[in-house]
Amino acid sequence: MYIFGIDIGGTSVKIGMFEDTFDLLDQWEIPTHPENLFEEVADDIKAHLKKKEISFAQVFGYGIGIPGMVKSGIAISCVNLGWQNVDVKKEFSKALGYDARVYVFNDANIAAFGEASYLNSKWDSVIFITLGTGVGGGIIFHHEIVEGANGLGGEIGHICIDDTYHFTCGCGKTGCLETVASATGMIRLAQHYKDKLSSRLNFNSKLAAKDIIDAAKEEDPLASHVFDEACQALAKAMANLSVIINPDAFIIGGGVSNAGVFLLERIQKHYLNLCLEQAKHTKINLAVLKNNAGIYGACAYLINKKHEVENNGKC
Amino acid sequence: MYIFGIDIGGTSVKIGMFEDTFDLLDQWEIPTHPENLFEEVADDIKAHLKKKEISFAQVFGYGIGIPGMVKSGIAISCVNLGWQNVDVKKEFSKALGYDARVYVFNDANIAAFGEASYLNSKWDSVIFITLGTGVGGGIIFHHEIVEGANGLGGEIGHICIDDTYHFTCGCGKTGCLETVASATGMIRLAQHYKDKLSSRLNFNSKLAAKDIIDAAKEEDPLASHVFDEACQALAKAMANLSVIINPDAFIIGGGVSNAGVFLLERIQKHYLNLCLEQAKHTKINLAVLKNNAGIYGACAYLINKKHEVENNGKC
Repeated sequence: MYIFGIDIGGTSVKIGMFEDTFDLLDQWEIPTHPENLFEEVADDIKAHLKKKEISFAQVFGYGIGIPGMVKSGIAISCVNLGWQNVDVKKEFSKALGYDARVYVFNDANIAAFGEASYLNSKWDSVIFITLGTGVGGGIIFHHEIVEGANGLGGEIGHICIDDTYHFTCGCGKTGCLETVASATGMIRLAQHYKDKLSSRLNFNSKLAAKDIIDAAKEEDPLASHVFDEACQALAKAMANLSVIINPDAFIIGGGVSNAGVFLLERIQKHYLNLCLEQAKHTKINLAVLKNNAGIYGACAYLINKKHEVENNGKC
Repeated sequence: MYIFGIDIGGTSVKIGMFEDTFDLLDQWEIPTHPENLFEEVADDIKAHLKKKEISFAQVFGYGIGIPGMVKSGIAISCVNLGWQNVDVKKEFSKALGYDARVYVFNDANIAAFGEASYLNSKWDSVIFITLGTGVGGGIIFHHEIVEGANGLGGEIGHICIDDTYHFTCGCGKTGCLETVASATGMIRLAQHYKDKLSSRLNFNSKLAAKDIIDAAKEEDPLASHVFDEACQALAKAMANLSVIINPDAFIIGGGVSNAGVFLLERIQKHYLNLCLEQAKHTKINLAVLKNNAGIYGACAYLINKKHEVENNGKC
């Protein structure tokens, strides 16, 4: 049977058509028009199915990731798309024109599911951390997504970790992990230290996190300090997560994770310093699916649901 | 059918005999002799069953809480009993003399399950926090215990929260929640402030957390400050947990929770200041089962397992 993974972004919708063996058959993108989104995605999928001569009966279901808070199939809030309390499950089924099996997820949560399933499907609990403009995340426990009572599960960018700078976060609080450990957090730290430490960084042009990381690789004093502090803040949050969830693995994704082994080793160093003895062997991996994590996650989740349906059907 | 809840403590073993309707029929205690524990508990239960003319076939199973780290039925470490990697499930079955259904839990985790089941069995995720000599905890998600990859799940006393005092914790790290928010943490804070704030507390006699809380109720300057800081540290950890797990409810137990509404209101005040808007309605409750939480939790867990067995048996 076939499974569709749909990852709705602010500018485009990524669609993946999978076999229920976790094999990606085809993938494409269409532009995001929030006002007409469900119809456009549904029409596009229907056209693809028609072209390939596949009927709805051959489609097990659809998994949809959206950039906002989700609870039980409802998009509680989704600023990028201007949505509030949108029943995505119902609207998308209506657009498809049949009572389809539709699951809806927060985009970081379903990316977590994708990366975890792809790296090691035997892991029971995994924490996925995305280092981008902000710090996002997703927590998987017993092969389920920790969505949370109000859709706040896995919003680890808002763990209060910094008692030094008290930078104000976009959420209105101070000291959130993402104020120091995200791409913008690194830039904020660099601005904070620019008169205190020497550097070859050019603060007159638009500074990017990549500039800081590249300079840190070359041992630029300011950049090295900033990079190290960002990694330490993240490691502190991870050490805390290791006495809360105590996951089998952490997976680090998002744009900053392109720094690769340089990033991973620095996080690992601080984590080993900060965690309890029993958590020292927790795996820390770099994400591998990157921009495809959402569609793979949706597929993996629906494969699990298919197994459940099959197991419930037989004695 | 009958279910036994067994809560192993350092000095005594609490045993509860339940009906599978969550009704406690009988409860009693026997002294803890670590070297011969399984035989003594098994013999005691067998004697009770014989007296009541109940056969093993009428017993659904046994749930055992132990004061140490547990993973998949194995007591990884249990300092109070001198155990390391003890296969509790196997040993207890052997002592009973038949292939019994035995589940093994960390004591705080199964107490969490008991309090959560008793207060509201519909809650999907609950975080239980015990404020005693240390700060313990248990996390329930989707009606399962978050045991963690290394048995560290729910060890929230070791969340690093304090960047002010850097008190050293029993775990060897500094800044753990329990260094300030436990009963001993409050005493430590009082010692720290005793020359800075006036107080009627007598530091020459053995100071107890209850003395501090009682004095705080009467607005003693030192005691009020200490009590407030301890509650704030706990609330900070809870605000962090609300963006990680985002539970339906927090439950506060342990000896310090005898301070009742005075404690609850202070925690609530700080929590509302520190949490995100979406998490403001998370319930904060006082524990109700107290010392019986472990045996009730074991019963509730086995009732769930019984339902699973029954549901798997029919199509």
